[in-house]
Amino acid sequence: MIRNLAAECLGTALLVCTVVGSGIMGDMLSGGNDAVALLGNTIATGAILYVLITMFGPLSGAHFNPVVSLVMSLLGEMTAKKAVAYSVVQIMGGVIGTWVAHLMFELPLFQLSETMRTGTAQYGSEVVASFGLLLVILLGRHFRPEQVASLVGFYITAGYWFTASTSFANPAVTIARTFSNSFAGIHYGDTIPFIVAQIIGAIMALIVAKYFLATPQAD
Amino acid sequence: MIRNLAAECLGTALLVCTVVGSGIMGDMLSGGNDAVALLGNTIATGAILYVLITMFGPLSGAHFNPVVSLVMSLLGEMTAKKAVAYSVVQIMGGVIGTWVAHLMFELPLFQLSETMRTGTAQYGSEVVASFGLLLVILLGRHFRPEQVASLVGFYITAGYWFTASTSFANPAVTIARTFSNSFAGIHYGDTIPFIVAQIIGAIMALIVAKYFLATPQAD
Amino acid sequence: MIRNLAAECLGTALLVCTVVGSGIMGDMLSGGNDAVALLGNTIATGAILYVLITMFGPLSGAHFNPVVSLVMSLLGEMTAKKAVAYSVVQIMGGVIGTWVAHLMFELPLFQLSETMRTGTAQYGSEVVASFGLLLVILLGRHFRPEQVASLVGFYITAGYWFTASTSFANPAVTIARTFSNSFAGIHYGDTIPFIVAQIIGAIMALIVAKYFLATPQAD
Amino acid sequence: MIRNLAAECLGTALLVCTVVGSGIMGDMLSGGNDAVALLGNTIATGAILYVLITMFGPLSGAHFNPVVSLVMSLLGEMTAKKAVAYSVVQIMGGVIGTWVAHLMFELPLFQLSETMRTGTAQYGSEVVASFGLLLVILLGRHFRPEQVASLVGFYITAGYWFTASTSFANPAVTIARTFSNSFAGIHYGDTIPFIVAQIIGAIMALIVAKYFLATPQAD
Repeated sequence: MIRNLAAECLGTALLVCTVVGSGIMGDMLSGGNDAVALLGNTIATGAILYVLITMFGPLSGAHFNPVVSLVMSLLGEMTAKKAVAYSVVQIMGGVIGTWVAHLMFELPLFQLSETMRTGTAQYGSEVVASFGLLLVILLGRHFRPEQVASLVGFYITAGYWFTASTSFANPAVTIARTFSNSFAGIHYGDTIPFIVAQIIGAIMALIVAKYFLATPQAD
Repeated sequence: MIRNLAAECLGTALLVCTVVGSGIMGDMLSGGNDAVALLGNTIATGAILYVLITMFGPLSGAHFNPVVSLVMSLLGEMTAKKAVAYSVVQIMGGVIGTWVAHLMFELPLFQLSETMRTGTAQYGSEVVASFGLLLVILLGRHFRPEQVASLVGFYITAGYWFTASTSFANPAVTIARTFSNSFAGIHYGDTIPFIVAQIIGAIMALIVAKYFLATPQAD
Repeated sequence: MIRNLAAECLGTALLVCTVVGSGIMGDMLSGGNDAVALLGNTIATGAILYVLITMFGPLSGAHFNPVVSLVMSLLGEMTAKKAVAYSVVQIMGGVIGTWVAHLMFELPLFQLSETMRTGTAQYGSEVVASFGLLLVILLGRHFRPEQVASLVGFYITAGYWFTASTSFANPAVTIARTFSNSFAGIHYGDTIPFIVAQIIGAIMALIVAKYFLATPQAD
Repeated sequence: MIRNLAAECLGTALLVCTVVGSGIMGDMLSGGNDAVALLGNTIATGAILYVLITMFGPLSGAHFNPVVSLVMSLLGEMTAKKAVAYSVVQIMGGVIGTWVAHLMFELPLFQLSETMRTGTAQYGSEVVASFGLLLVILLGRHFRPEQVASLVGFYITAGYWFTASTSFANPAVTIARTFSNSFAGIHYGDTIPFIVAQIIGAIMALIVAKYFLATPQAD
């Protein structure tokens, strides 16, 4: 299982490094036009998700996300113990990825975000974002397993724009982003409600996916 | 058929939620540069169309659009009654999607758009947009059925830019967007001519597709 | 052959309608930031090329471009007479597409472009652009025939940015764009040197492709 | 082997021509908004990488990059002598590509970049960028050989935004870009540390890929 964990850790590190790094780059170059910064952030994140899921999928499943591991464990596809181990290394990887981004952009290594993302609208956005993400994964891998990487990449591409929270949809990424006081950061006080919202959205997706994938009814 | 209808309703809700939500996000962040806002709106919409059609296609056909259901019914591939049921849930889903977007962005739930999109040029744009969309679907599913999701996603990506109306091309989306006084909104007074134009464009595409797909002639 | 010609005419019309329409839209919304306008123009054109080549490829080969038809005729894959007929309907389609774009944006139907694109650098750009386009088509269809549509779409996406002329690379599109005094226009005085440059680039690509595709030598 | 070398030279020329040309175009049109310029530069580069690797892959392997050839030679897949020959023509091609871009944009042919990209953060960025690129290639070709072209294109799309150096990740491209005093340029004094960093990143990727691709352990 060491190799699985190494893949999850490295993959999440590269993912968060891209999220945070492209956020810094966009903010730095866009002259205050946040929509342009978000475009760069979006394109980079969508692209790297496709790449990372394609290359690490055969090694570890390419979850990079504790709620994905949670759902897989609820489906009986991995043990609870393994899901916990996955989550731990995903969070570690995420924090490492944040730090690597800071090093590359010559920013102080240790930071705490001051970006408040508080309120039911933000939390509701995370329910929607995570519901959509898990539904995409659960239906996608059933109907088009070879397209899951591009489905997730394109879903998050859309999610950055259609949800008010820009679709964190991932507890490891959420925790990692509390350590960056940059474009992509989030104040640690919002972490718990974000993660609760992500879990709620994921469970909702699991229920809906089970409904859709139950034995075909007469049409 | 309940499951079909649930898929159409949920899929259209997610589609319209993306169209309206990314319109709000783009408008909010772009500092008045509408081209930048439209870029974000475009990328999100194109991406989610690919995702939604891929994941819901095997469940309901992934129409999300009453004129698509109309054409399928004219082709004898679904009963008129089923096409009507599809259309009803598509419109319901679209309105729900609009409301979810408003909730996520802390906007008033109930709104009526004041964005006039009146005139023969706008209506003509919808004829062109819908003609193109249905032609893409009818030829695409014939020649490259596995690529219909990306064909539709990329077609609408182009349509947002090359038609003056930004390619609604969908009565359910049109109706849903009358309920949002945001970047993506449309005044209810333009709904009927938009829908008429969409039906005309779709019928034209059906005729042209039949011509192209008739028994191959001697070359 | 009527059906082939109809496909070439309609496809080229939709292509040019997208090129001109998205140019107008970008120019109208971008507040004078030409790079943002070009981004919209690029995304729309790249996307529609993928769509049109996929859907019309099985019907007519989806040339939409007289220099492509010329090269196919030089390769003995179509008669010179058919290549001429293709070229005529491509030009007709292109002009119709320009006019449809003008109608959709409520612009005067008949226009002549005043945008000068004169000089050896512009003409040289067209040699490079057309050389690249034909090389992509000739190697792409040999090694990855199922990817030609996306190869051409992505090639032109790049071409809009890396050539000083924004890669017309197509005599039918060049002629059609003389009839639009908009972002995408070109003064008729530059038509002949553009077309000559396009033919030179295409012939160069044919020679290079023949070299690369000759019987494999010992390695 | 002549044909292999011709493919590497031409492919690298087209790649660098796109990198430099789209940098000039973006800079010229973006009115000083560097994020918008980088968006154009990114889209063009990502797109052309997919195109060039697809079309030249079957001819020469489509390395276009001395550290890729180095790693292939360390893996015993090509002789050291061939890797050196590849590297030489890649550098030649890159320089030619720079000059063609200058010609197309009517800039002085011979230039030396004055853009300093100095410091451990920049050099560290190149380690990360090259590590990621080679890891993508080594895992990608193992698990999804038919997707290597799009994996590399999307990886560099992300790399332009998440690394502080905008991911040169290629000694031939680095050397070629010293000859352009434009958006994409780099001062020759930074060439050696950039190349050293690229080699370090590539070797690290080779080690990590070997670990992941070793005989599957018990899970």
